[in-house]
Amino acid sequence: MELIHLNTVWIVIAAAMVLFMEGGFSLLEAGLVRTKNAVNVTMKIFVDLTIGALAFWLFGFGIMYGQDAFGFIGTSLFGSPEKISLSIELPSEAFVLFQMGFAIACVSIISGAVAERMNFKAYIITAALITLIIYPLSGHWIWNSEGWLAKLGMKDFAGSAAIHAVGGFAALAMAKLLGARKGRFNSDGTVNVFAPSNIPLASSGAFILWFGWFAFNSGSTLDATNTSLASIAINTMLAGASGGTVTLLLTMKKFGKADPSMTINGVLSGLVAITAGCAFVDQWSAIIIGGISGIIVIYATLLIDNIKIDDPVGAVAVHGFNGVFGTIAVGLFDTSAGLFTTGQVSLLGVQLLGAAVVAVWGLIGGAVIAKVAEVTVGLRATEEEEEEGLDMSYHGIPAYNELERFTDLPTSLYDFEESTGITIARTEQKQVVGKAVAD
Amino acid sequence: MELIHLNTVWIVIAAAMVLFMEGGFSLLEAGLVRTKNAVNVTMKIFVDLTIGALAFWLFGFGIMYGQDAFGFIGTSLFGSPEKISLSIELPSEAFVLFQMGFAIACVSIISGAVAERMNFKAYIITAALITLIIYPLSGHWIWNSEGWLAKLGMKDFAGSAAIHAVGGFAALAMAKLLGARKGRFNSDGTVNVFAPSNIPLASSGAFILWFGWFAFNSGSTLDATNTSLASIAINTMLAGASGGTVTLLLTMKKFGKADPSMTINGVLSGLVAITAGCAFVDQWSAIIIGGISGIIVIYATLLIDNIKIDDPVGAVAVHGFNGVFGTIAVGLFDTSAGLFTTGQVSLLGVQLLGAAVVAVWGLIGGAVIAKVAEVTVGLRATEEEEEEGLDMSYHGIPAYNELERFTDLPTSLYDFEESTGITIARTEQKQVVGKAVAD
Amino acid sequence: MELIHLNTVWIVIAAAMVLFMEGGFSLLEAGLVRTKNAVNVTMKIFVDLTIGALAFWLFGFGIMYGQDAFGFIGTSLFGSPEKISLSIELPSEAFVLFQMGFAIACVSIISGAVAERMNFKAYIITAALITLIIYPLSGHWIWNSEGWLAKLGMKDFAGSAAIHAVGGFAALAMAKLLGARKGRFNSDGTVNVFAPSNIPLASSGAFILWFGWFAFNSGSTLDATNTSLASIAINTMLAGASGGTVTLLLTMKKFGKADPSMTINGVLSGLVAITAGCAFVDQWSAIIIGGISGIIVIYATLLIDNIKIDDPVGAVAVHGFNGVFGTIAVGLFDTSAGLFTTGQVSLLGVQLLGAAVVAVWGLIGGAVIAKVAEVTVGLRATEEEEEEGLDMSYHGIPAYNELERFTDLPTSLYDFEESTGITIARTEQKQVVGKAVAD
Repeated sequence: MELIHLNTVWIVIAAAMVLFMEGGFSLLEAGLVRTKNAVNVTMKIFVDLTIGALAFWLFGFGIMYGQDAFGFIGTSLFGSPEKISLSIELPSEAFVLFQMGFAIACVSIISGAVAERMNFKAYIITAALITLIIYPLSGHWIWNSEGWLAKLGMKDFAGSAAIHAVGGFAALAMAKLLGARKGRFNSDGTVNVFAPSNIPLASSGAFILWFGWFAFNSGSTLDATNTSLASIAINTMLAGASGGTVTLLLTMKKFGKADPSMTINGVLSGLVAITAGCAFVDQWSAIIIGGISGIIVIYATLLIDNIKIDDPVGAVAVHGFNGVFGTIAVGLFDTSAGLFTTGQVSLLGVQLLGAAVVAVWGLIGGAVIAKVAEVTVGLRATEEEEEEGLDMSYHGIPAYNELERFTDLPTSLYDFEESTGITIARTEQKQVVGKAVAD
Repeated sequence: MELIHLNTVWIVIAAAMVLFMEGGFSLLEAGLVRTKNAVNVTMKIFVDLTIGALAFWLFGFGIMYGQDAFGFIGTSLFGSPEKISLSIELPSEAFVLFQMGFAIACVSIISGAVAERMNFKAYIITAALITLIIYPLSGHWIWNSEGWLAKLGMKDFAGSAAIHAVGGFAALAMAKLLGARKGRFNSDGTVNVFAPSNIPLASSGAFILWFGWFAFNSGSTLDATNTSLASIAINTMLAGASGGTVTLLLTMKKFGKADPSMTINGVLSGLVAITAGCAFVDQWSAIIIGGISGIIVIYATLLIDNIKIDDPVGAVAVHGFNGVFGTIAVGLFDTSAGLFTTGQVSLLGVQLLGAAVVAVWGLIGGAVIAKVAEVTVGLRATEEEEEEGLDMSYHGIPAYNELERFTDLPTSLYDFEESTGITIARTEQKQVVGKAVAD
Repeated sequence: MELIHLNTVWIVIAAAMVLFMEGGFSLLEAGLVRTKNAVNVTMKIFVDLTIGALAFWLFGFGIMYGQDAFGFIGTSLFGSPEKISLSIELPSEAFVLFQMGFAIACVSIISGAVAERMNFKAYIITAALITLIIYPLSGHWIWNSEGWLAKLGMKDFAGSAAIHAVGGFAALAMAKLLGARKGRFNSDGTVNVFAPSNIPLASSGAFILWFGWFAFNSGSTLDATNTSLASIAINTMLAGASGGTVTLLLTMKKFGKADPSMTINGVLSGLVAITAGCAFVDQWSAIIIGGISGIIVIYATLLIDNIKIDDPVGAVAVHGFNGVFGTIAVGLFDTSAGLFTTGQVSLLGVQLLGAAVVAVWGLIGGAVIAKVAEVTVGLRATEEEEEEGLDMSYHGIPAYNELERFTDLPTSLYDFEESTGITIARTEQKQVVGKAVAD
């Protein structure tokens, strides 16, 4: 038995766990949006896992890890990513599979922010363009050993910048260009909150994401002999716990209620923020980083609301803002070169540059995708589609049909109307009868 | 440290992931059936995991892996499966546990196809007979090194034939003999579609199944030094992604809607189809196999409808048809002996034979079980039980009681009736009050 | 590559799986309680995973594994648990992470028993005190090599006593001191059963718990070269299957229905009962232990009801009674020193002592926590909070908002009232409109 065998087992399991995070994204988003759009967010995650996965395998991987040109872009391995030559003891197929999980995660971040009003075909274009070029290009800069940010010494262990900040800022641009959901903002500047539709569903998504995150971060070692492996795992746990603790207690203090969706987002913020530095900081730093991220997510959410951008699940605050913060935090807490830990500033400078570059690239990427979708298939759902709900409009079925058993109630009330002359407000519930697989 | 230690860790984790797939089956089926039968499908999965697991451990394992007789049946290890002597570096307990996950999966395939109208006791008999004899016997032919199909050179790496085709065709026979759910087919030959009750639930089941499938296929190496291990994992991913992509795009094109249950079944079809060949084909072949399976599942579903067999979740199309297709596909795409890859036909011949044998055996097994159940406890639920829903009939509780809070509405409407003389249509909702643990 | 690298991978994955069990607890409890309290139980699990995790890391770990004083308490490692020196080949961070999962699990046991009527702040105190002192102290006695029960030779491989019995009996004390939910017991001594609100949710929790349990028990080897590793895994499976089989068949026989929540609790009971002995008994013993636990859980549940203690999810029966039984069962079935297997009685004596000590300690711990909560923040929710549901009272949001679409129905009925003069019973449903993130 050799090292490659242990590494193979380790990374195949880790990749499976990272890919399982898509289930987490799906449940989280389905629970946080309104019921009439819960199927649609679920189907978008299937787009990521199918079309997005193939697009990255076919082309994106080559952009990211192919032969470098100018520190800027990869130029080989298209259609045959397994031909990559790795310097670690790992079969290339395991490496490619693990990277596919990362690319898909980047799209799924966007999925939540554009929920409830995007044209479904525009989302397919989004998933394809993110995995074909937007994510792989900045990924090349940071993670290809020849990339220009890598050569500057930027440290982003598992992708606070490369995945979360890129995805989060692309989400910001797209949410802005899409416009808000109907009824979200009032003319007097106040915000209408659409309550999450299903808290147990959303929380089960968060638990799956947390589970997968251990593999996301520790798996990024790609090598079982990496002496940081266990340290990465506990840092991940501590930062998530710390982020969640802070949001839980702050929402209790600030609003008088322990808010579930904010607590979930606090946990996720801690996990996002530690993703860059998990291999480079000590446990107390992980707790501090997580705790700060739990404050950031609350104020970032308020900020996004204030500038009238509609992000139904808080993806920009969680992934964008805390992706940037986590990247910068490496420059502050890195045990060998952090400002707070060693007094050095050069790493911090690189991290600031890298974070800024990646955020801007995300914004540009998101804007370009929105434009492409706009001129091809249309970016936004029609008013009727949005009103009816994207589930019925694009997928022909509501999320929960068990409610059908109550639908004879309205019918009977129609009888009341007729006999009493009193008009009753109608429910929005649509019946799905005889929806044949084929017509 | 020796190889056996790595293998032990690998297979124990893989077995846990495979057994977790039962959760996937449960959620998938509970989401795809009507609400009034969601508890019942869940309980059937518990039957698989409890009675089915013990039956296989006690007796089925010996039929499958015991001392061979005539290439046909195993004859030892009953009540002590751990006494098997393995030629690989793996504790027998890990091997037995992994095999238990496979046997149970075979039953759970049937569970969906017979949903919503089978007598619960008949299902217990089904789970027992499948794990005691039906699955182990054909498993012996294919996977016991002395089995007659194994000796012919049949290749079925993780069970497209041994598990999925057997389960899928047993499901077909049982669904046929059970008859359709009340109201499913009209006298003029048209089909009434009962909409899935809970799409987020069904999709979370699919995510769990996908997660477990990595262990199902890669774990079938049983050995971490198998050089195909990582390749198996990425083939699994690519085939699932490809199957899902094809059904997603086809349903959009064909029906104007991206259909969630068909997309889920497309993903699962890709996973089923690659299960036999995952260790024997290259990545482009995996994509092609997955893509074809995504077409097959749509037309197979229509075919099953046309011959008036009622399969509520599409299990026959997914597992039966694509199990057979996946088995045959090895003969086409195998890198060392496939027709398309090498021009050889002998392997294809064996695969065709093996697929046919297994499908026929599944049909016979399903028919025999149905007959046994019929003459002992009764195969089908009574009309009243079916009408009321199997949840209340067999388990005394509906899936979702949160709707209770609306139940004072009907009550109050009774007052209306009384005072106004207008008759109101009743809901089907049953109240569960005072259901004591014991009486 | 050395052993430590394999162990690191093994225990990091196992720890992730154990921590994922929190998702299982959350879904199980959310499905078993009434809808109006489903968010609250979910948020309590987040308290365990955040505040509980940090509290154990900061202080509890030192009590448990720090420098021993008098066989009674640990006195070092506070704030730096990773400084522990291990005699096994494992990075201390992996060990600490795995232990965090155990400590949190102990709290989550209590969460279910006190559901639906506890002050949320009192639960935060509970989580903190359990992880800071109650669990670590008895854990020190059993699992620190210098602990007094450890020195007596008590065998509790993965914590039937150290985790489940402590948690279960602390839960019993707290449930008693909290009092029953309003309407639970009638003055004539009869019991009102509040039906579980969401069976698919509860069952998905059970599947996750079962999945994680493989890591809980096999991971407790902490070492991949432990020759019992695979045997532990299959014993875990067999005991869970056996427990579930017995409850399933018994409820069918006794009540005429195959009861889902009792079947789930039967499975969990088997898993709890085998936790102490999984490394010490053979497979037939595992089946017997699981089967007995499946009987115990039914009668323990009835007993708890009879003494008028209200345990909404059956946590005391599952974890308390079967934790004690599992501890004692080691003394009966241990292959090297069990009464039934070898005729020896000394181990049985130690196990009886250990089980009794731990149960009493759990009762004391639970009572002390209840008292502390009582005098600081108040132990029990107010009558209004309980009536309204803890979800709205403490978290400002109901679990399922999809039901909103029906809420115009009541409104319209108000019109009816006004025009007809007939008073209609009101639903409990509260609307959440304009719930802003900040005010």
